[in-house]
Amino acid sequence: MPTQPAVKLNQTQPIADVQASADQRNIAIDHVGIKDMRHPIRVADRSGEQNTVAMVSMYVALPAQFKGTHMSRFVDVLHGHQGAISVASFTDLLTELSARLDAPTGKIEITFPYFVTKRAPVSGVESMMDYQVTLLGEIDHAQRDWAVRIRVPVTSLCPCSKEISEYGAHNQRTHVTVQVRATQSIFMEELIDLVESQASAELYGLLKRPDEKFITEQAYDNPKFVEDIARDIAAIFNNDERITVYDVSVENFESIHNHSAYAHIACDKRGR
Amino acid sequence: MPTQPAVKLNQTQPIADVQASADQRNIAIDHVGIKDMRHPIRVADRSGEQNTVAMVSMYVALPAQFKGTHMSRFVDVLHGHQGAISVASFTDLLTELSARLDAPTGKIEITFPYFVTKRAPVSGVESMMDYQVTLLGEIDHAQRDWAVRIRVPVTSLCPCSKEISEYGAHNQRTHVTVQVRATQSIFMEELIDLVESQASAELYGLLKRPDEKFITEQAYDNPKFVEDIARDIAAIFNNDERITVYDVSVENFESIHNHSAYAHIACDKRGR
Amino acid sequence: MPTQPAVKLNQTQPIADVQASADQRNIAIDHVGIKDMRHPIRVADRSGEQNTVAMVSMYVALPAQFKGTHMSRFVDVLHGHQGAISVASFTDLLTELSARLDAPTGKIEITFPYFVTKRAPVSGVESMMDYQVTLLGEIDHAQRDWAVRIRVPVTSLCPCSKEISEYGAHNQRTHVTVQVRATQSIFMEELIDLVESQASAELYGLLKRPDEKFITEQAYDNPKFVEDIARDIAAIFNNDERITVYDVSVENFESIHNHSAYAHIACDKRGR
Amino acid sequence: MPTQPAVKLNQTQPIADVQASADQRNIAIDHVGIKDMRHPIRVADRSGEQNTVAMVSMYVALPAQFKGTHMSRFVDVLHGHQGAISVASFTDLLTELSARLDAPTGKIEITFPYFVTKRAPVSGVESMMDYQVTLLGEIDHAQRDWAVRIRVPVTSLCPCSKEISEYGAHNQRTHVTVQVRATQSIFMEELIDLVESQASAELYGLLKRPDEKFITEQAYDNPKFVEDIARDIAAIFNNDERITVYDVSVENFESIHNHSAYAHIACDKRGR
Repeated sequence: MPTQPAVKLNQTQPIADVQASADQRNIAIDHVGIKDMRHPIRVADRSGEQNTVAMVSMYVALPAQFKGTHMSRFVDVLHGHQGAISVASFTDLLTELSARLDAPTGKIEITFPYFVTKRAPVSGVESMMDYQVTLLGEIDHAQRDWAVRIRVPVTSLCPCSKEISEYGAHNQRTHVTVQVRATQSIFMEELIDLVESQASAELYGLLKRPDEKFITEQAYDNPKFVEDIARDIAAIFNNDERITVYDVSVENFESIHNHSAYAHIACDKRGR
Repeated sequence: MPTQPAVKLNQTQPIADVQASADQRNIAIDHVGIKDMRHPIRVADRSGEQNTVAMVSMYVALPAQFKGTHMSRFVDVLHGHQGAISVASFTDLLTELSARLDAPTGKIEITFPYFVTKRAPVSGVESMMDYQVTLLGEIDHAQRDWAVRIRVPVTSLCPCSKEISEYGAHNQRTHVTVQVRATQSIFMEELIDLVESQASAELYGLLKRPDEKFITEQAYDNPKFVEDIARDIAAIFNNDERITVYDVSVENFESIHNHSAYAHIACDKRGR
Repeated sequence: MPTQPAVKLNQTQPIADVQASADQRNIAIDHVGIKDMRHPIRVADRSGEQNTVAMVSMYVALPAQFKGTHMSRFVDVLHGHQGAISVASFTDLLTELSARLDAPTGKIEITFPYFVTKRAPVSGVESMMDYQVTLLGEIDHAQRDWAVRIRVPVTSLCPCSKEISEYGAHNQRTHVTVQVRATQSIFMEELIDLVESQASAELYGLLKRPDEKFITEQAYDNPKFVEDIARDIAAIFNNDERITVYDVSVENFESIHNHSAYAHIACDKRGR
Repeated sequence: MPTQPAVKLNQTQPIADVQASADQRNIAIDHVGIKDMRHPIRVADRSGEQNTVAMVSMYVALPAQFKGTHMSRFVDVLHGHQGAISVASFTDLLTELSARLDAPTGKIEITFPYFVTKRAPVSGVESMMDYQVTLLGEIDHAQRDWAVRIRVPVTSLCPCSKEISEYGAHNQRTHVTVQVRATQSIFMEELIDLVESQASAELYGLLKRPDEKFITEQAYDNPKFVEDIARDIAAIFNNDERITVYDVSVENFESIHNHSAYAHIACDKRGR
């Protein structure tokens, strides 16, 4: 059994602030903070507000002279946030974070499922589809920057398989992930619509038989490689003057292989 | 290039219902349905209602004579559900499912993060903790049965490490998962409180330094093996007359190993 | 700063064995041990031996009178095992575990990717496919029991989509998971072959264009619901006298939805 | 039922090469290829060769004028590789990939568990520890570049918790991930040793009680924040002239919270 300490701390003394002590290593830290905190949020977009659950990571830079950051303040900032989060407004969190941690630079990532009510293409029945959205924000001496990343599940149908086969064509679920920076805020739903319009077909929560027939034939009429989907989305982003930086990746969970086919295009239109 | 079909289907004919056709294999299916559908829900418990996001799976049994079930009806039932879900009420979904699919037996699993606002033990600051909850329900010819499973993250501190070391003791995050069937509904928060009271210490979203001191010393004063936590919870369940069947598992993400320590106790008090 | 203990333990005294001390709670533990230990293994099957990497979990029952098990002995047993692991031989580990932990009952689960070299159907080019295999063993007073579980990724093509559409049919990657107990050991490759033969088409690591044409048309010629695949495999297991207990589950990662279609059949032919 | 095509393809005609057809969109693709292919490999390092199982992704750039890449050739290159993979030699795969796909630029990522046999600090008993290693390689017009990334699980003990508490200190499993580019190849085991030496304590597969005592006290004697571990490793990399670019991230799976503490330092010593 371990020996008990002979002298107890005097509880009226202030508790030491280890994090605030000086550091001699002369090495600044790029990002320090909390990672993967689950948190309920409200999100606002084109069709109104919705409740969802986010994974939140928040970091600041730590100058070389300080030993540690104050982790509890990150949680304070998050819990103190009132109101809905939107592409337009979530960067306010960056300003709060910067002020509260007394740090000129910082970074926030908020990932959540976002639901859109869609109408089936023939029957018109409504159902919900979920999309994984990440809001990314950075602050650097009061200059705030943001990007939005959305993962949109779609159908892709293989042009090669269709061309060489007498009938049928392999198709599969595909994840298209787009990330954009823009000069003005863009609705998440606008990006989702854009991606879905460039797939072989889009997904739905609920399809009646006439809808399933429609989707099946639409996909067969519209075969696309991962390369095609990536390029067709890039072409649209190239022509959208609001968008300054983008990234498109397309991953097919191939129905004829046990691995993925993948294509990726990144572009910084500012020439960097 | 594949040859196009020469004759188009006459669109005014009804679309075939393949699923409803007869099956000759004479093999009934235990469970058929939809798995892992993401869906926003409201959950009601001791402290009121909250919004969260669930993963939902819903199945029915399929008699030997039918070729397939009608998958879209499961989604219909889920989308049609109004009102908050609670341990007391979620089995209504089973009745709807059974009626809509014309199936005497069925099963539903709903998994979601559930948030509880907790006060830090010394400073009293409030923050949220998240727990993974699964509601499990079965229906068999109008007889409904349910269970609730909750995964509660806690701290465990090793009694052996404390005993044999002059100072310190290894401790780590631990997942305690309890599943109970009871003769009356039990609040999720009651189960969470119960589990947290039997750990070396409980977790919080936000701790000030006096809280961290309290938690650190509490854990050191209260060392427990996975076996101890499992037994202490089982002992409470044994004495709770509402509970008829339970299952306790404890997994330590050992801070001195790259694998887990694990203990499991299952008990059906009805003697089965 | 915490006060240092004034007296050091005398290192010549034996270190206390906390686990072996008596327990007063009078609650036995069903399973206690180590979970998710990564370990390199050699596996033997029909086509010879191969090297792979396993996740291993090993448990024993702990009688009510002992406070804890000795976790390090589980690792000892695993590290001490020489020779390849096969469906026929892995239960030897159970005997070693039972002896070493002085426990009459115990349980082992070993999960690993297993590779099979396959020939493409037309070109004959060879490539490897990976399958997730789990060996499950239990010992009860020298009576050993085992089962093997294999997850086989295949293609499924929807019969409804084919029937109602003028051309094309949605298809997708599907996971078929079978678990069997048998009166004699069964080659993993035999189970894999059996499952693949009952899908719309099987997967390959490498396909040339003539192979892709073949697979595409084969899947279109062979449409199957999750229900069909589950039943066709169950029918074969029903007629295989070696197999006493089986479990078949089929999960389609639907290419037209963002959730899965799922079917499950379980059967204990011994009438339990 | 869909109408069958009236005319069959003449099988003696060559099968169309859709991928090689011209593309009019004038958009080059940064990376296209196969992602997450599971493959057994042999790895060579300081202590010899070992067998393990990798996840492999391989990509090339696709010029604007081609419609698609030839996915099967990536698998061919991987299957054709003979001999062990090492930090020194795996970039040969890049040369093969570039030649076979006729692509001047390409990229390979190979991730696998790597096992090191370690001796417990007091008893000297041997056991294996697993580390996740990723080899990253790029080729650009015959110029090959590589980096190695290793995730090392360790123990961290909180300096604040130790300082403010009369006894005990919270500690937990921590993932330290380092990625380095260097002017000459570096043994994986050298990087693992380096990281482990900078943690509060290192992990082992198997510890006897005297070892557990040693590790417990060592961690208590050596408290470190995520910031400390990141800085101490960065300081060593700063002084290692072989290393030109590095990245260190430290993630604590906090034993008192349900989220992680995280720190990250990146440095390009070439001044970019």
